[in-house]
Amino acid sequence: MTEPNRFDVPLPGLHIGHPVDDVATPALLIDLDRFEHNLALAASLTAPHGVSLRPHAKAHKCATIARRQIAAGAVGVCCQKLSEAFALAGAGVSDIHLSNELADARKATLAAQLAAQVKLSVCVDHPESVRQLGVAAADAGSRIELLVEVDIGQNRCGVSTVEAMLALVDEIATHPSLSFRGLQAYHGGVQHVHGWQQRRESAQQSAARATQFVAALEQRGLRGLTVTGGGTGSIEFDVASGVFTEIQAGSYALMDRQYGELEWRDSFRPAHALHLGATIMSTPAADRVICDVGLKSLTVDAGLPSLARDHNAPALTGWDYALANDEHGILRRAPHHSSHEAPAWGSRLRLIPGHVDPTVNLHDAYVCHRGGRVEAVWPIEARGMAW
Amino acid sequence: MTEPNRFDVPLPGLHIGHPVDDVATPALLIDLDRFEHNLALAASLTAPHGVSLRPHAKAHKCATIARRQIAAGAVGVCCQKLSEAFALAGAGVSDIHLSNELADARKATLAAQLAAQVKLSVCVDHPESVRQLGVAAADAGSRIELLVEVDIGQNRCGVSTVEAMLALVDEIATHPSLSFRGLQAYHGGVQHVHGWQQRRESAQQSAARATQFVAALEQRGLRGLTVTGGGTGSIEFDVASGVFTEIQAGSYALMDRQYGELEWRDSFRPAHALHLGATIMSTPAADRVICDVGLKSLTVDAGLPSLARDHNAPALTGWDYALANDEHGILRRAPHHSSHEAPAWGSRLRLIPGHVDPTVNLHDAYVCHRGGRVEAVWPIEARGMAW
Repeated sequence: MTEPNRFDVPLPGLHIGHPVDDVATPALLIDLDRFEHNLALAASLTAPHGVSLRPHAKAHKCATIARRQIAAGAVGVCCQKLSEAFALAGAGVSDIHLSNELADARKATLAAQLAAQVKLSVCVDHPESVRQLGVAAADAGSRIELLVEVDIGQNRCGVSTVEAMLALVDEIATHPSLSFRGLQAYHGGVQHVHGWQQRRESAQQSAARATQFVAALEQRGLRGLTVTGGGTGSIEFDVASGVFTEIQAGSYALMDRQYGELEWRDSFRPAHALHLGATIMSTPAADRVICDVGLKSLTVDAGLPSLARDHNAPALTGWDYALANDEHGILRRAPHHSSHEAPAWGSRLRLIPGHVDPTVNLHDAYVCHRGGRVEAVWPIEARGMAW
Repeated sequence: MTEPNRFDVPLPGLHIGHPVDDVATPALLIDLDRFEHNLALAASLTAPHGVSLRPHAKAHKCATIARRQIAAGAVGVCCQKLSEAFALAGAGVSDIHLSNELADARKATLAAQLAAQVKLSVCVDHPESVRQLGVAAADAGSRIELLVEVDIGQNRCGVSTVEAMLALVDEIATHPSLSFRGLQAYHGGVQHVHGWQQRRESAQQSAARATQFVAALEQRGLRGLTVTGGGTGSIEFDVASGVFTEIQAGSYALMDRQYGELEWRDSFRPAHALHLGATIMSTPAADRVICDVGLKSLTVDAGLPSLARDHNAPALTGWDYALANDEHGILRRAPHHSSHEAPAWGSRLRLIPGHVDPTVNLHDAYVCHRGGRVEAVWPIEARGMAW
């Protein structure tokens, strides 16, 4: 093995300008027309309300997409992990909200160093984290803006009482290198309520809980604060809530099966821009064929992928992705479906992953296509950035 | 952003010889004593039966582990994807069985090129794949050994009749650059049968089906063939089956919660060598704390992770990992558990992932420890190699 480069082989068939259906599979594909439609759609929802859009980069982990979102009007992006923020900052993203807590003094030190180089805000829900960040920012000679995370119903992180919130605000005030910037109020469960009307009511209830925290801050004379939250499922309700100043939606840019199955109205209907390109690699039975996309190319924590009906051959009508093995997808024909045409060995299909965020995190690049041809390859810089 | 290296930050606290509990989390940890125990255990099971061990590298994707397995007596490794084989070949692994089918002429060409540089065998279950490999090997001036995959009950890939198997054997014989090497007969479902006795019976039934295919080949005068299959759950039965000449077990080296929950006997009891190091990053309620390991650091396709009781603080007694979000793990205290001590903010824990293969595929390196100190960092060269 004296020439290791002999073994460094790129994805076969991947060439700019060539047909996207020539790219070997599994391949993570972005339909650029749909992606751009989704970006414009979110911008058109937020701008008339004077609400900022700060898309969540955890859903794509890609600096090119972050820059495109900012070019389309976003004020910056969110990251969920500090290493993710470093990866995107290294690729030119200069306004990042870390929408999560740190519980490690060394991470606080690194956050303070990053804050010296890009605009950075960080969430807190524990006084010790405030102290670690305060010491680190003083040492680094930087300034970190903090948002107190309040729990508006998700039952994950965040303080749940006004008293605990105010105690953190007081703690922040004791550190000259820290600024209290406002609140983060996110309720992930609301995002996935199926019915549009029910989702609106859930979003309004969450917004009402956020308003209670904001009111307590206003009684203290604290105004003009950022209130960041919301997501793809609730964006059209959050922009009209009167409490959110900034929306963190992420999945809208690429979408997934889980979000696509919700009830949408014409006011906001993002398109499936993300697919897994797959190939039928085995045709062992009349009611069973096997594709090359399994658990290492998409995740099933939000259920199995669906077949992109508008992209697939007629022979796949009546077939479903029925089981995911590590490297295989088992497709089965519905019993009542009696077509005598079956998917051919070596033929291609496109899948819509169940859940965009962890699926994207499996891949190193997006193959971006328009009009059936590869237009660009975008690296996923923050793939695997988990700390 | 003129100095992108300023943003290239390694995992904090990761230093050879330093305490493993100083490494920032999430971190993928290997307990080297247990790992070496598992390697010796598998070697001790296979050697007395004259059966070869060819561990599956899809379970670890790491050339260092592959080399360790070969040093412990394995004849080579299996890969499930061609790109995985290239990654390991590039890191010095020179005997690889591709335990999967190819359905792309360009992949056949690359396989033929790889076969010119390392010892390579490939599975087939379709005549067109045989033809593609035959043409490609002739063009490359290489020789590829083919194994016909037969379905012994898994209902995934592979031919299910003796006639279809023999048709492929005949097709292989028409290509001077191909050799018929034998059969692959793998039944994944058997591996996870809970009861030891029931698992033995299932393994014996599968082996009996494999024997029928072998008998048909022997009637043709084909002897001395490889019959490769088996796995961690059935290894002790497969070595004694009289039909398998080679065992493909993979998970035994690192293990996972799913395998650990099976009924084992003293004859073969691999140890949990793999953990996710995690940190309690939020303590919002008396019965709920949040750790920093979620769906981007482990997968839940085989269920939630368990807490490694032997590694965790007493304060975690009675707590369980109850819900995985993208970047968070929600731990809950059992209602009947009334300890007044709760896990502290910033404290550490270790998790046993539900399913080793897709979890490992999320990470770029293993942090290997012994006696509480970091001994080595092993790159996961084939991480993300999905085509």
